[in-house]
Amino acid sequence: MADTAYDPNNVFGKILRGEMPAHKVYEDEHVLAFMDVMPQGEGHTLVIPKAPSRGLLDAEPETLATLMRGVQTVARGVKAAFAADGLTIFQFNEAAGGQTVFHLHVHVIPRKDGVPLKRHEGGMADPAVLAAHAERIRAALAS
Amino acid sequence: MADTAYDPNNVFGKILRGEMPAHKVYEDEHVLAFMDVMPQGEGHTLVIPKAPSRGLLDAEPETLATLMRGVQTVARGVKAAFAADGLTIFQFNEAAGGQTVFHLHVHVIPRKDGVPLKRHEGGMADPAVLAAHAERIRAALAS
Repeated sequence: MADTAYDPNNVFGKILRGEMPAHKVYEDEHVLAFMDVMPQGEGHTLVIPKAPSRGLLDAEPETLATLMRGVQTVARGVKAAFAADGLTIFQFNEAAGGQTVFHLHVHVIPRKDGVPLKRHEGGMADPAVLAAHAERIRAALAS
Repeated sequence: MADTAYDPNNVFGKILRGEMPAHKVYEDEHVLAFMDVMPQGEGHTLVIPKAPSRGLLDAEPETLATLMRGVQTVARGVKAAFAADGLTIFQFNEAAGGQTVFHLHVHVIPRKDGVPLKRHEGGMADPAVLAAHAERIRAALAS
């Protein structure tokens, strides 16, 4: 694994700076959560720290702590919004580990019994569907 | 997802209480790490909190914080021990989410470029191989 430094010119860095849009579902002082545009399942959401970290290994312990609090919060909303039977959490590091955007992120995927995951490269989702799913998760988090 | 209570009579609870053996690689006040006996790749390690939690949703924030510190520590050792190009992290909740043991746990899998993961149900690993891998990770963590 290359011990590569964080490069702020990545898609999630741009979303954090408001330079690119995202279907946001949750934000607090430490984290931002938004829909994955290539979902492996309905409701597939990403949670990222605002602190600049490339992956798990270069993150400050405090960043991981607040990130996981955000993941737990978002997971509760995603579970409620999609009446999920389970939740699958992924966190990938470096290309060999499955990472495609080099800003630390956690995948939160609601699961239904008997419904397999789709491949991540399965294609871009319809933006209108993502917007509706984001609204559904925001409503669950607010209730 | 059933809001099911933690049942201490699970395999990882037994390992924590010393009622079952494990190929341990790391332990601190808050977490224990040991080899997965059905590895999806060479060096596949599990990190569990000592606090009783069924999964992500019922864990205390402090439990998640110390768990992720342990995951980061173990991931560094696993990366070094197996000269990994990347790391894949999984955390499964409820059967629909991929969970088979109902004590919160995080999978840490070292990855090599071009080597796909094996299925988790691919079978039990040779205990001698797991013992050797655990020793390799312990040595990496100690150096």
